[in-house]
Amino acid sequence: MKKYNVALIGTGFMGKAHSIATAVVPILFGAPVEIERKVVVDIDEELAQNAAKQYGFTEYATDWRDVVNRPDIDIIDICTPNDTHAEIAIAAALAGKHVMCEKPMSMTVEEAQRMQEAARETGVVTMVSYNYRHTPAVQMAKRLIEEGRIGDILNFRGYYLQDWGADPELPLSWRFNKAKAGSGTLGDIGTHVIDAARLLVGEFASVNSIVKTFIPERPLPAGRFFGPAGQASSERGKVDVDDAALTMIKFTNGVYGTIEVTRNAWGHHNQLGFEIYGTKGSIAFDYQRLNELRVAFADDPKDAFGFRTIYSGPHQPFGDKLWPVAGMGQGYIDIKSIEWYNFLKAIAEKGQASPNFDDGLQIERIADAILTSGVSGEWEEIEQPA
Amino acid sequence: MKKYNVALIGTGFMGKAHSIATAVVPILFGAPVEIERKVVVDIDEELAQNAAKQYGFTEYATDWRDVVNRPDIDIIDICTPNDTHAEIAIAAALAGKHVMCEKPMSMTVEEAQRMQEAARETGVVTMVSYNYRHTPAVQMAKRLIEEGRIGDILNFRGYYLQDWGADPELPLSWRFNKAKAGSGTLGDIGTHVIDAARLLVGEFASVNSIVKTFIPERPLPAGRFFGPAGQASSERGKVDVDDAALTMIKFTNGVYGTIEVTRNAWGHHNQLGFEIYGTKGSIAFDYQRLNELRVAFADDPKDAFGFRTIYSGPHQPFGDKLWPVAGMGQGYIDIKSIEWYNFLKAIAEKGQASPNFDDGLQIERIADAILTSGVSGEWEEIEQPA
Amino acid sequence: MKKYNVALIGTGFMGKAHSIATAVVPILFGAPVEIERKVVVDIDEELAQNAAKQYGFTEYATDWRDVVNRPDIDIIDICTPNDTHAEIAIAAALAGKHVMCEKPMSMTVEEAQRMQEAARETGVVTMVSYNYRHTPAVQMAKRLIEEGRIGDILNFRGYYLQDWGADPELPLSWRFNKAKAGSGTLGDIGTHVIDAARLLVGEFASVNSIVKTFIPERPLPAGRFFGPAGQASSERGKVDVDDAALTMIKFTNGVYGTIEVTRNAWGHHNQLGFEIYGTKGSIAFDYQRLNELRVAFADDPKDAFGFRTIYSGPHQPFGDKLWPVAGMGQGYIDIKSIEWYNFLKAIAEKGQASPNFDDGLQIERIADAILTSGVSGEWEEIEQPA
Amino acid sequence: MKKYNVALIGTGFMGKAHSIATAVVPILFGAPVEIERKVVVDIDEELAQNAAKQYGFTEYATDWRDVVNRPDIDIIDICTPNDTHAEIAIAAALAGKHVMCEKPMSMTVEEAQRMQEAARETGVVTMVSYNYRHTPAVQMAKRLIEEGRIGDILNFRGYYLQDWGADPELPLSWRFNKAKAGSGTLGDIGTHVIDAARLLVGEFASVNSIVKTFIPERPLPAGRFFGPAGQASSERGKVDVDDAALTMIKFTNGVYGTIEVTRNAWGHHNQLGFEIYGTKGSIAFDYQRLNELRVAFADDPKDAFGFRTIYSGPHQPFGDKLWPVAGMGQGYIDIKSIEWYNFLKAIAEKGQASPNFDDGLQIERIADAILTSGVSGEWEEIEQPA
Repeated sequence: MKKYNVALIGTGFMGKAHSIATAVVPILFGAPVEIERKVVVDIDEELAQNAAKQYGFTEYATDWRDVVNRPDIDIIDICTPNDTHAEIAIAAALAGKHVMCEKPMSMTVEEAQRMQEAARETGVVTMVSYNYRHTPAVQMAKRLIEEGRIGDILNFRGYYLQDWGADPELPLSWRFNKAKAGSGTLGDIGTHVIDAARLLVGEFASVNSIVKTFIPERPLPAGRFFGPAGQASSERGKVDVDDAALTMIKFTNGVYGTIEVTRNAWGHHNQLGFEIYGTKGSIAFDYQRLNELRVAFADDPKDAFGFRTIYSGPHQPFGDKLWPVAGMGQGYIDIKSIEWYNFLKAIAEKGQASPNFDDGLQIERIADAILTSGVSGEWEEIEQPA
Repeated sequence: MKKYNVALIGTGFMGKAHSIATAVVPILFGAPVEIERKVVVDIDEELAQNAAKQYGFTEYATDWRDVVNRPDIDIIDICTPNDTHAEIAIAAALAGKHVMCEKPMSMTVEEAQRMQEAARETGVVTMVSYNYRHTPAVQMAKRLIEEGRIGDILNFRGYYLQDWGADPELPLSWRFNKAKAGSGTLGDIGTHVIDAARLLVGEFASVNSIVKTFIPERPLPAGRFFGPAGQASSERGKVDVDDAALTMIKFTNGVYGTIEVTRNAWGHHNQLGFEIYGTKGSIAFDYQRLNELRVAFADDPKDAFGFRTIYSGPHQPFGDKLWPVAGMGQGYIDIKSIEWYNFLKAIAEKGQASPNFDDGLQIERIADAILTSGVSGEWEEIEQPA
Repeated sequence: MKKYNVALIGTGFMGKAHSIATAVVPILFGAPVEIERKVVVDIDEELAQNAAKQYGFTEYATDWRDVVNRPDIDIIDICTPNDTHAEIAIAAALAGKHVMCEKPMSMTVEEAQRMQEAARETGVVTMVSYNYRHTPAVQMAKRLIEEGRIGDILNFRGYYLQDWGADPELPLSWRFNKAKAGSGTLGDIGTHVIDAARLLVGEFASVNSIVKTFIPERPLPAGRFFGPAGQASSERGKVDVDDAALTMIKFTNGVYGTIEVTRNAWGHHNQLGFEIYGTKGSIAFDYQRLNELRVAFADDPKDAFGFRTIYSGPHQPFGDKLWPVAGMGQGYIDIKSIEWYNFLKAIAEKGQASPNFDDGLQIERIADAILTSGVSGEWEEIEQPA
Repeated sequence: MKKYNVALIGTGFMGKAHSIATAVVPILFGAPVEIERKVVVDIDEELAQNAAKQYGFTEYATDWRDVVNRPDIDIIDICTPNDTHAEIAIAAALAGKHVMCEKPMSMTVEEAQRMQEAARETGVVTMVSYNYRHTPAVQMAKRLIEEGRIGDILNFRGYYLQDWGADPELPLSWRFNKAKAGSGTLGDIGTHVIDAARLLVGEFASVNSIVKTFIPERPLPAGRFFGPAGQASSERGKVDVDDAALTMIKFTNGVYGTIEVTRNAWGHHNQLGFEIYGTKGSIAFDYQRLNELRVAFADDPKDAFGFRTIYSGPHQPFGDKLWPVAGMGQGYIDIKSIEWYNFLKAIAEKGQASPNFDDGLQIERIADAILTSGVSGEWEEIEQPA
């Protein structure tokens, strides 16, 4: 049986998370295809070497270009800052490698288009790591909607609230830098909500937005910096990305909604969520309580009508493969593992993963329109998928 | 000591609630001025007679015109459908009566302006019954903001979600009829959120909205109908008001926000609420848990940082006058009683109540701009208070 | 139509609450019998006079003995400290007056027995003010149980948690004094849970308990003191009542359970609640969220099974008489008003109120056994009602 | 560097969970000692073979006796039904192997004593898999208590509520069979709460209990059965273990408390939790929301006092090693991985793990006394650790 060798590019927190997922998948679910953590790449050799040891990779390297064309490599796993996604992904796809790419897919719509084209050219399996959609409670929401159990959707309210950006003394990491990150909060976390909205409701027709930068200057970081923590230097630099974005949405199917994202909402740490109202019921989800889905059914008896808190468990998607009783606690590892399982399953079945580069491109278009509307103050139409 | 005689116009649920409030105020708080429930008015004589007996009024009448100029009447309390507010309030104000007027203030901005002018001409005390702002937890939120405890406000998210309108077989009561109600969900409940936003954040500069009617036809009611319940006839009529409205807001002080209101959100019965994020903390309130205010303070120790659930009690506004320990349960009666206390206190002190006709007019302007934007699809500027 | 004149004995917070209830009942529910707040009594004349004015009584008096036999008085409403209940209630009952008596009914089982006998002798209507059982959500729990919707009850867990007693510098009010209060936390709030357990589950067969006094000394109060607040003097006195009690219960029907009560649970202000597990479902209630009842039904579909949060509203007991939509907010006033409505209804129908002196006596027996078991360390049998 | 070879005995759900943990630990935390999943053992050869493949073990075997003395094996990981723990653990310990043993430790106190003695004889590192204590929020509770932030503990209320046992048609798996399981709910889940109570409060002095079997007969399972699911046969068998247990506790330090455990609480799936009240604050935890710790501090300003919901994150135990922001979602895998990390760390440091066989023995003594008291109806003293 063919073994699929994985090359991980990027050794930060996200590379670690993917390494855990690839270690967990075969044990937890059974591997759709056999995989090996083969090479890990970081431009910093020490980091690469340490990661190889800690993350369980056979080899390490410092230049992804040396790896992407190796015939023994089957999967390229991109966990680097956003400004490198396109170049690596295109090279990988053209080399016939399946590509897992962390979100957001790219810096620009144009980059995403070229990534999609490259993947289509060789027919490789692609996935963009909008991992939160893989949460069983979210998939359960999708199933309930598809089964018509809340009727026709009327509107959608999505949000992603964090507070790690709220401290003005937090150093200006790459996430606050347009040249590195493409955009700010919208690209970083807003795209997760766009992904959820497309999954659960449908395509976006147009958006109308407010986009804000609350903290225009921050201390420059002292040294290499990845993620929310890090040391500050005494110099300050300009933040050129959004701290928050708010958009109204018209979906192509007539549903309307909003998305609100901010990294300046004290007390909300990783609060991705949504409420959906339908003609026969409502659904609410909040990732900070990722094991819970709240659902109200209009046809309940009047004296027993109210939101039910349904804990994720055996009777939900992936329930047979996770824990034997509800309430044992799905967490971030479970979500990343399901994501990798879905990706590997698509490889095994020579099918398409979700969300793939087509989805990623569409999400970039929507995010781009939101930023454009933030400047224009007008409804911006979204180019629809081909 | 002068006794203030109250004439209540309208004997429905709201007239009953005001009667309870006027009975409770002197016992609970001590009366700022002595009042008597003197005359109750309903065009239906039987209803008027029954109300006099049940609500504790000395007399009843069937035409408010007979009452509004009576020299022994000091306060006119308007609890009738929206299309009558302006005429009664203007007559009352011009007759020198203090006016309590249920919300929304009027059918149109023009009506509200004339009401305001009448009140200004005679200098009577006015109040519009945006009662929810009187909730002690909301007043506590205001105090925390004024004390700077969440820093500068960044954004506001307000909502009012109900589900009594979600059943398409619910009869077409006056609340679904533009000629009687002026507008639909926006006027009925959205104006409460506008009131809260103005109280807590400030004046609206402009709005950009989506306005929806989900259920365009309903059965006509069989007989007189007031409120959410009632019998249906076999005929159907057209709904010409909004079922839901969503708006983005730019406040004059640079804060931005959203308001979302709907009567079609299954599982949400009377869910008025808001979240406010500031530079130093966050505040969240939800009327369905009206005894709780949730607050996060950024300067809490990192290992003990998170939203606090603060129960309303002795240490909050009106805490000395309500119940001796927190958690005993403030309810709708408490809120309506505080509203009346504030109104009577303004009369006693010959001052101005809040929210008064100036506030009510401004809320009408904002609501009007939201509906206009729902049609134009553009940002609509709000005319500011003189 | 006969008017029933009420004499209120005691002008503290509880007298005020009863006065509000008697003012609200006729307006909110329609009066089962017509009542008038006739005389209010306090040993302190100034307090009596002020109360008459504020609470809306026609007269005041300083000695309840002058009032209890007045032929024009029909109802005696006892809102005085516990050590006076028996004497007043017995005199009132023997004088043929209907008696509303604040909880706990008495200082001792023996007192309660004599009160019950007096009431039986004249056949007057009695009620003990275990008001929390009148909460519509609690009555809804009772209805669900009676309808078999959670099957046979397996066990009961009740609690009443407060924190006003947790501060060791809080003065030694009458509530910490055995001679005035009879017992401490158990009598004060534990009896409410016993009442709920009897209402929902059945009679207690035996109890096994731990009883604790955490704070053995407190500053003596400076001056007359009623309720949780008040000024301290520099002297200290001994607390001779319980701060907390915990008991296991065997009910006569085979159900088992626990009750835990404390006034030393920081963060819990007035948290009366219970969970009940049955063979077909579960019910949970917490008074700090008194508008919510949480229910789980075992026969729900597996993928939609979980606790439902049911807001109190039109479809629950008293729903037709309270607010038109759920979530408007029932509060303490509603509960006390329902209590009075039930009392007056029993008078109108010449029936028996619940909970009456029979219930109050049985609660005293149970409370007494809990205290006894706290000393003996053994299971104590409860004498059953005749 | 020495590599530690692990032999896993038992291939059910729990063996799978341990395999995931041993795969995750080195990646997530860095391995305190290098480990290899060497041999997996199941009496059923096919299960053993499949497990070797899926769980990532090099070899498989069908008799643990062949493995326990192998010189290349360093760690024996016992994930078999309870009736085999003692024999395997004693053999392993005497062979000088470090032992991870699933809970409950043993069938009887006597077994646990022999296990402890064997481990002491050879000085191996032992751990009993009371995994829930490793939850970072629980460890945070412990830290807050140790730092005195809730003052002196007054009382403890622990519970573990499940509902998988509530269906009377659920087959009679080994968990309902005394000869296989030792006890029922108490041993299965109650021991987790005892472990938490000892961790957070201290040693138990005596207990007084009620122990219940609600469903005395169940269908016999069709075929081999492990865990809550499985097929029923048409025959029925007798349940000879407890479905629920309730105990009052006196701790040696004067604190008192309760523990309530049941597998018949519909709607509660895996609800392990506790509340602890201290002289300066309160702590509450509920595993179904394992990322949240609720804490109230008495010295908060009165107008901002209330339970804080603190999400697990970087500032809690293991926070630097888990996810970069709070709210990303710790789950069951994280907890089992921390457990294994702690075990391996003790091996690396040649120290003692917690909870070890000493702890496990003491928990057996307490559980035994609870069952004894359930029969005697009296306070049962607990033999204290040597």
